[in-house]
Amino acid sequence: MTETAESRIKVSRDNGVTTVTLNQPERRNSLSMAMLETLSEVLASLATDADTRVVVLAGEGRVFCAGHDLKEIREQFDRHEFQLALFERCSAVMQQIVHLPKPVIARVAGVATAAGCQLVASCDLAVAADTARFATPGVNIGLFCSTPMVALSRNVSRKHAMEMLLTGEMISASRAEEIGLVNRVVDEQVLDDTVYRLARTIADKSSHTLRIGKEAFYRQLDMPLAEAYDYTAKVMADNLQADDAQEGICAFLDKRTPEWKDR
Amino acid sequence: MTETAESRIKVSRDNGVTTVTLNQPERRNSLSMAMLETLSEVLASLATDADTRVVVLAGEGRVFCAGHDLKEIREQFDRHEFQLALFERCSAVMQQIVHLPKPVIARVAGVATAAGCQLVASCDLAVAADTARFATPGVNIGLFCSTPMVALSRNVSRKHAMEMLLTGEMISASRAEEIGLVNRVVDEQVLDDTVYRLARTIADKSSHTLRIGKEAFYRQLDMPLAEAYDYTAKVMADNLQADDAQEGICAFLDKRTPEWKDR
Amino acid sequence: MTETAESRIKVSRDNGVTTVTLNQPERRNSLSMAMLETLSEVLASLATDADTRVVVLAGEGRVFCAGHDLKEIREQFDRHEFQLALFERCSAVMQQIVHLPKPVIARVAGVATAAGCQLVASCDLAVAADTARFATPGVNIGLFCSTPMVALSRNVSRKHAMEMLLTGEMISASRAEEIGLVNRVVDEQVLDDTVYRLARTIADKSSHTLRIGKEAFYRQLDMPLAEAYDYTAKVMADNLQADDAQEGICAFLDKRTPEWKDR
Repeated sequence: MTETAESRIKVSRDNGVTTVTLNQPERRNSLSMAMLETLSEVLASLATDADTRVVVLAGEGRVFCAGHDLKEIREQFDRHEFQLALFERCSAVMQQIVHLPKPVIARVAGVATAAGCQLVASCDLAVAADTARFATPGVNIGLFCSTPMVALSRNVSRKHAMEMLLTGEMISASRAEEIGLVNRVVDEQVLDDTVYRLARTIADKSSHTLRIGKEAFYRQLDMPLAEAYDYTAKVMADNLQADDAQEGICAFLDKRTPEWKDR
Repeated sequence: MTETAESRIKVSRDNGVTTVTLNQPERRNSLSMAMLETLSEVLASLATDADTRVVVLAGEGRVFCAGHDLKEIREQFDRHEFQLALFERCSAVMQQIVHLPKPVIARVAGVATAAGCQLVASCDLAVAADTARFATPGVNIGLFCSTPMVALSRNVSRKHAMEMLLTGEMISASRAEEIGLVNRVVDEQVLDDTVYRLARTIADKSSHTLRIGKEAFYRQLDMPLAEAYDYTAKVMADNLQADDAQEGICAFLDKRTPEWKDR
Repeated sequence: MTETAESRIKVSRDNGVTTVTLNQPERRNSLSMAMLETLSEVLASLATDADTRVVVLAGEGRVFCAGHDLKEIREQFDRHEFQLALFERCSAVMQQIVHLPKPVIARVAGVATAAGCQLVASCDLAVAADTARFATPGVNIGLFCSTPMVALSRNVSRKHAMEMLLTGEMISASRAEEIGLVNRVVDEQVLDDTVYRLARTIADKSSHTLRIGKEAFYRQLDMPLAEAYDYTAKVMADNLQADDAQEGICAFLDKRTPEWKDR
């Protein structure tokens, strides 16, 4: 079978919730240059897709994502420019998730390692099966997980991040929940239900409001306190000029369900 | 009854511990422009009040604080400048808490939502009754909690903040403790005792020392590591020139109780 | 007995794991100017010591480290320049740990207070006996723990840091684990075994890779997201040019144990 973008990544839609599934289980859903390019294209298309209100990121099979494709990297050992392009592309995709104007939820069954763990950390929310496991094991193969740690260290505290990075060892789903890498851990049997219900809860909000809020969240995180307040006070005042805010407030005060214009 | 500053906020003093109570339970202690202005005036007066060593922030009734006054906001829908002034005023009050030269402890019974949750996050410490609940539900009414998230995301990890912001759902007091939004959760029957004992423990310290330390804490947080150390090394050397530091060190070495000059 | 650098700090080597032990239990291993200078010299020598792959930092006796030497500080009350030099030296040693090109693990038995708690927070990893306790009690003696809080507040969340700083009270080892100040708490009987096994796990990695990764970790933490990714993408592409990365990847793909060049 010829590999195509469609064979690499499956996209399915259900009532505003679009699930993007890495679909090369035989390659442990690794982030080859081709996979990264396809993922980038899919995300870009969903950014403006009116039927997509929330994105779920999943992996087919027993591995969520095993990080980079080491065979591909080995084939290009002598091409520094390829390697740099690969890590830049990967970093761009991770930031594409952060900047996507729609919430992204990682649905983690199985193993998420290296850049696969980074994918989980880069999503806005993450729900894991109790059988899921996480690691940044690059140190075991002489290639420290330096790009994955950008996302990891912005999710969990320093000592927890350093333990994963320096030992390269797997942590359980429950440990991942304790340290803040995932929001919830559930029995694998109810993983899809849990993720879908969470996604639907969010999909019922005004898309316009979600877009404003998500963008502001990540921007203000990188600012000192006073600057963050100056910025977000403006964001809220502007938000209030939107139809959906005025409708939402009126509906709340009138004790009725709001009807969003920008669904 | 005509509304006055005194009717909006109650201030009571007990042995160095000053309790500031939002006192409009019939309005869910919402942060109207008038309430924000009164709170700002009260905090400003306490900053220089010699009888106030520690501030406790509380809410009268079953709601700690429900955030902004949506009726007031609705009345001003067409006045963007009012809205901007409102969010700027609110942001200024939150920063006033951070910059107050005395520790501020949130005493949370009941519900703390939106800017009410932000108040809790903005205090130096927070103690909650086990019946307390927290949410940033702006997303439910089309108005994302963009200013509240500045404080929230500086208290809890990203995924925890995002879950509250994107779902708008209530979390329990015990969950708030787990994620770091409050320091302690106690039975509602002992909430006042617990808060008072904590406040008194701190009120027994040198006020001069608390002032130096609190200011330095928030300033160094926004600095890179080397700059934070340059700054705080100077703060400590200056701190040592104060009477209270020299008295405290001598008392410790002589195994006696220190007598603070700057009580 | 005349005090010497050798009497202040013991250094022992075991198969790549070098243990640095503060050795003045009768002075509660306090960080006098002499102790700080010796520690700085020891760390500098280990930075380039080929037999040292991982550093363990320990304290002899029932106190890990009690912070600054208050008697020394009292003797110099009128010398502001000495005090400033002392805190600058201490801050430099803490940053030396952060910048040491080898992982540093705190092994904490007994009490770690003030700058002693800062030492724990400054290490990459920390393992504590269940009997260990932690505090930043400077506020009790009129000298706020302003330099210790730089490290503390970069390990634990704001409210947890502020509770320790404002109350000055001891927290247990298990509480320290909960809030992220230490990685693991174990029975004191197995503390040495646990630390040694953790250190050996890390010592088996490529030293070159550890050096690259540790440096990049702390540098990217102080950067905004986009800058952190630009930087670490370059770090990873450069890392891949190293013999150890290519050997590690080949060994992984060939299912054999890697043989590090830069052990």
